[in-house]
Amino acid sequence: MEFKDILKEKASFINKQLDRFVPNCIPEELSNAMRYSLEAGGKRIRPILVIESAKAVKEDVNVEDFIDIAISTEFIHTYSLIHDDLPAMDDDDLRRGKPTCHKVFGEAIAILAGDGLLTYAFEVISNNKKLSAEKIVKVINILSHNVGIYGMVGGQAADILPNFKDVEFIHLNKTAKFLSACCQIGGVLADATEEEILKLKNYGINIGLAFQIWDDILDEIGDEEKAGKRLHKDKDKNKITYPSLYGLEKSIQIAKDCVEKAKNEIRDLKKPEFLIKLAKYIISREV
Amino acid sequence: MEFKDILKEKASFINKQLDRFVPNCIPEELSNAMRYSLEAGGKRIRPILVIESAKAVKEDVNVEDFIDIAISTEFIHTYSLIHDDLPAMDDDDLRRGKPTCHKVFGEAIAILAGDGLLTYAFEVISNNKKLSAEKIVKVINILSHNVGIYGMVGGQAADILPNFKDVEFIHLNKTAKFLSACCQIGGVLADATEEEILKLKNYGINIGLAFQIWDDILDEIGDEEKAGKRLHKDKDKNKITYPSLYGLEKSIQIAKDCVEKAKNEIRDLKKPEFLIKLAKYIISREV
Repeated sequence: MEFKDILKEKASFINKQLDRFVPNCIPEELSNAMRYSLEAGGKRIRPILVIESAKAVKEDVNVEDFIDIAISTEFIHTYSLIHDDLPAMDDDDLRRGKPTCHKVFGEAIAILAGDGLLTYAFEVISNNKKLSAEKIVKVINILSHNVGIYGMVGGQAADILPNFKDVEFIHLNKTAKFLSACCQIGGVLADATEEEILKLKNYGINIGLAFQIWDDILDEIGDEEKAGKRLHKDKDKNKITYPSLYGLEKSIQIAKDCVEKAKNEIRDLKKPEFLIKLAKYIISREV
Repeated sequence: MEFKDILKEKASFINKQLDRFVPNCIPEELSNAMRYSLEAGGKRIRPILVIESAKAVKEDVNVEDFIDIAISTEFIHTYSLIHDDLPAMDDDDLRRGKPTCHKVFGEAIAILAGDGLLTYAFEVISNNKKLSAEKIVKVINILSHNVGIYGMVGGQAADILPNFKDVEFIHLNKTAKFLSACCQIGGVLADATEEEILKLKNYGINIGLAFQIWDDILDEIGDEEKAGKRLHKDKDKNKITYPSLYGLEKSIQIAKDCVEKAKNEIRDLKKPEFLIKLAKYIISREV
């Protein structure tokens, strides 16, 4: 089986689990907007990272004990996409080939659907009754730190400010820290040692950087129809990217180096195979 | 000392404590926007409710053990104001007599400042090292439930939808549940019994409803200059309010009834005096 298909199988498992936790509230417009964006698809890479990082450090993890926590990372990812697509932000009309949330439900409901999904993630995590309170607090701490002002939100703010030129800061904060948080959380859930959690953290940062640099590259050379979204928008907006700074060839080399670092970090874990394959896969994507 | 001045003194204590936790991040535009809105003033009623609810059930509470948690409720309140004021939502240019966040920093940074404050609240709470993990999880659960899709976010969504006509649902969810959550959290922090927490919960719901109905009334009869914000906007927008549904006199009676219910709920707690005075104060406000 190709790794691409293994990933698809895992994403389809996540989609089934997601159904159990999709929020349902009043007013129904809010519910519909959240569901619309959650069900728009995607690779579900964050929940997969939580589960696979746990499996990398411990053989007999019971995924059912923390599936709610894994799914919550997808709530947060979806909130970030909804807000990023808003007219005041990246102003995107299409996401995964479908109209963006605000295009369908209006800006106000889209803002609230994002706020709602972010808050709901913490509600779902704090509702978990199977894990110790110590683990839950640690998970919430890692997650809120890395998706907040010292992570994703800070990275997104830097990304939209025209005078902010540090592209590594942007990629690290906007993308890599959240992916890294998912890896760390998997470690915490599987009773990893501090040393193992640090390895997972570094692995996550490096695949995150590789992922985002590769996205920059695909944005420059990819096929818009295959991608299901507008490409070349970085160039259109005069954004600084890795290819614009270093050229295509050097950018590819930097992404490859990140993948090497990521693999080296975790190769001593008990079962690192999946994470190693994932790291390699990131820089083989074609759209 | 008049109760109004007692409240001012407590708000000034909260303002001093807030300084210790004001977030500071890169990019500085994001930091500045969060600080601007946090320092725009306000009654700080939510942190006060956390602290006073704890004191109502237990004589020797150590406020320093949970001041971070109390302050976090103000982060969440401030995020909700920033997002509510956005052009796509209530479209307000002034808040407490000052230009709103998006007027000063632009819409994109305002959206992110809100997202950042919301996430930072959970980071600060999960950073607390003085309380048991069990208490922290309970606090996060109560808070996220009541400010999310089953509370404040749901209420705000209902409020902006022109076809949503249930004003009690809106007030209950948009305002009362968050205030009630603060009271419950105070109880949890002070080791209240389940019964005491239920009393605090009901107290909070009732003062919340009274507060919002009174705001409806003041929006109709208040003085715009004194209030430091645009009034009569409910009428301008053809929003359903208590006065528009029941008339002024009956609305005042409903608010008074809520205050009576609130007082009755908590009069058997160990030290209910402050909470009783606060309930009465809510329907004596003049702007």
